[in-house]
Amino acid sequence: MQELQGSSRFDRRAVKVDEAARLVLGAAMPGRRESVPLGQAAGRRLAEQASASCDWPPFARSGLDGYAVRSADTAQATPQSPAVLRVVGAVAAGELARAAVVPGTAMRIMTGGAVPEGADAVVMLEQTADTLENGQPVVRVKRAAGPGQNIAQPGEEFRRGSPLFEAGTLLRPGHLALLATFGYADVAVYARPRVAVLATGAELLPVAAPLAPGTIRDSNSVMVAAMAEQSGAAALPLGRLADDRDAVTDALEAALAQADIVVTTGGVSVGDYDIMAAIMRGWAPDRLAEASVNSSLAEDRLLFNKVAMRPGSPTSAAVVKGKLVIALSGNPGACFVGFEWFVRPAILRMQGAAIETALPEAVTAVLDAAYEKGSPHERFVRTRLYVEQGVLHADPLAFGKSSMMASIPDADGLIRIPSGSSGLPAGSLVEVLLLQG
Amino acid sequence: MQELQGSSRFDRRAVKVDEAARLVLGAAMPGRRESVPLGQAAGRRLAEQASASCDWPPFARSGLDGYAVRSADTAQATPQSPAVLRVVGAVAAGELARAAVVPGTAMRIMTGGAVPEGADAVVMLEQTADTLENGQPVVRVKRAAGPGQNIAQPGEEFRRGSPLFEAGTLLRPGHLALLATFGYADVAVYARPRVAVLATGAELLPVAAPLAPGTIRDSNSVMVAAMAEQSGAAALPLGRLADDRDAVTDALEAALAQADIVVTTGGVSVGDYDIMAAIMRGWAPDRLAEASVNSSLAEDRLLFNKVAMRPGSPTSAAVVKGKLVIALSGNPGACFVGFEWFVRPAILRMQGAAIETALPEAVTAVLDAAYEKGSPHERFVRTRLYVEQGVLHADPLAFGKSSMMASIPDADGLIRIPSGSSGLPAGSLVEVLLLQG
Repeated sequence: MQELQGSSRFDRRAVKVDEAARLVLGAAMPGRRESVPLGQAAGRRLAEQASASCDWPPFARSGLDGYAVRSADTAQATPQSPAVLRVVGAVAAGELARAAVVPGTAMRIMTGGAVPEGADAVVMLEQTADTLENGQPVVRVKRAAGPGQNIAQPGEEFRRGSPLFEAGTLLRPGHLALLATFGYADVAVYARPRVAVLATGAELLPVAAPLAPGTIRDSNSVMVAAMAEQSGAAALPLGRLADDRDAVTDALEAALAQADIVVTTGGVSVGDYDIMAAIMRGWAPDRLAEASVNSSLAEDRLLFNKVAMRPGSPTSAAVVKGKLVIALSGNPGACFVGFEWFVRPAILRMQGAAIETALPEAVTAVLDAAYEKGSPHERFVRTRLYVEQGVLHADPLAFGKSSMMASIPDADGLIRIPSGSSGLPAGSLVEVLLLQG
Repeated sequence: MQELQGSSRFDRRAVKVDEAARLVLGAAMPGRRESVPLGQAAGRRLAEQASASCDWPPFARSGLDGYAVRSADTAQATPQSPAVLRVVGAVAAGELARAAVVPGTAMRIMTGGAVPEGADAVVMLEQTADTLENGQPVVRVKRAAGPGQNIAQPGEEFRRGSPLFEAGTLLRPGHLALLATFGYADVAVYARPRVAVLATGAELLPVAAPLAPGTIRDSNSVMVAAMAEQSGAAALPLGRLADDRDAVTDALEAALAQADIVVTTGGVSVGDYDIMAAIMRGWAPDRLAEASVNSSLAEDRLLFNKVAMRPGSPTSAAVVKGKLVIALSGNPGACFVGFEWFVRPAILRMQGAAIETALPEAVTAVLDAAYEKGSPHERFVRTRLYVEQGVLHADPLAFGKSSMMASIPDADGLIRIPSGSSGLPAGSLVEVLLLQG
């Protein structure tokens, strides 16, 4: 019997998934920067380190409503014999006191007010009683106030110039609060990487089309575009292409002209119509050498066209005209896994994320159900995660059914089944890659 | 000594935080709906149940590249004596076979291709070898193929009409893939609730302003607006107001006219300038009765103006003109906690989330450091969560420093310290509310 088909036709060398991801990250450099108003900066990543523009708090601030006092004046105070202090004014937030607190006096102060000169403690309003004595307002304090009590000292939280966040930090609402505090009305962030999305496959119809026999609607484009946007990219969905090498080549060319990353789905397998596989193969070093291509083309290079993982082993990546082309499988489950391993990290990296941050985040969890199959390659199985009594559990969804779309929306993790494993019993501690919410 | 001040001035009854959250949710009803193109539906919530518009797969689909065969023809096949089948054509994805597979024949088929009549199994290309015999193409199959092998049967994954997702479902990229599959080019979703954000406090400057003595920049508005958008709302940041009752009343009126929810920050405490506290108090049932107000005003009602929690105990909520007014503390840490407990749930509920889904999601985790303080009220402490050996750990950030802003961005959970507890030793199992990423 002669040589088997397909796998031999393309001599694809499988690289391990971690190595493949690092190859992609090696080709994804932090990209363009832009300035955006603070109110639009959530979900973006800082392009420069942010630092404290002043000490924080900028002045001695009262933490609550009450009376600013000299702690020494209250040292002997008891409920039976309260300290009686003459009230010399009030200081609201936003203003400065017009007088100092001298011995035997106190000043009414509001939350956030600047503690007046002379005072070194604030007594909570609820722990005081005010009255008039000889027509003068006085306040009674029935307990000793400690020096510094209820006062945030200048610079206590931040020193002017001290770093707040590093470049590459993903900005969440709490980051914006600190940036506002320090006057960042505009923020330097990385521009959204432009991610072109191209679906290949003669069987694909637009979403709005009625089904014809043998056809299906393109579901990968909208999923990949949404995943790209979720990662901070601007998605450019460029539609569907039949399995025609010239048409796909032209479309890739056009996509490369307008995008930072080109993601394709479908056509990466071993079949006769697997156009992306053939095109990617054209960027392999041996092919380029054969073709005695010019130097610009010689910089194009295949990164890998087989990954030692299931699903998604034919996932491929190349650098073309200095940009990443990532060819995902057309199988929705494989497309999803390929995105998490290669496309999301590249998008994050182009926004300045450190390499370790850009890679999928992994945790350990207890496997709820036995996984029976061994596999020559690592396998990624969609799972739901939940916590019980402080223990993280992975409840696998549709074990071994990567083609099933139904469980993709429910997944919040991917269980990593080691290669060669003869299966894992329920209760095993497994590695799980976390998916975005 | 006469009565203590502040707390007695407003006789505020503290409600438990869960009860307070349910009072808010009782006033937040699923709101307006709209139709959006599928490509813009990620992060939105379905307004109607979605269902399968056809069986899925719609036809018997090949799961891989290979040959469609009659399994009976291969029953005796071995590596030494392979089944030799005449190749009667090829079927690519997107087309129908022009012939049937009759006994003794096979048809080349691509991934996603419609399995031709007569065939009941697909053999992987890599497990076959093709050649010519008497000038006719034949394929050799060296192992028996099981009936149904590598074929997804029509309706195997979904039956036409079966439900996909319930109304209120948050649409993630995987949901979009399924909606695309079933032809949902447009999707009925809940409109983004409009959340007006008003900061009160005479000390507050706009973010772009230089600091003057005694002043700080408004950091809550941008944080609250970003948290609202993160929850699916459209934020309307309406700026800052000094502590002037008429100005704040007018601004609330204007905000109520254009928003679904009005969120204020600051002015809820017991101080002389705590305008929001006074305004909220005006909606309390006894005050409304005193004022013998008209029936429209009588529908306005205070939900609560004290919550048995730290930080954020003066957090208040009312229903005014049928809309929620939620008054958060001006302290950034308390503002943050108040948002998670009251504003986010209301925004989610207005987008159709079930009440249990809208409430903060809680998990259990192992506390990494002892919490020493007892407290008459429940306390929420920001924490970083991490997993080690399948166990979820809560590493508390800045225990007891709710005013500290520095740790807000780093928090991914809020540890719930029970009331009255005299402290919790390290290693305790604690409840942690999960924060959005």
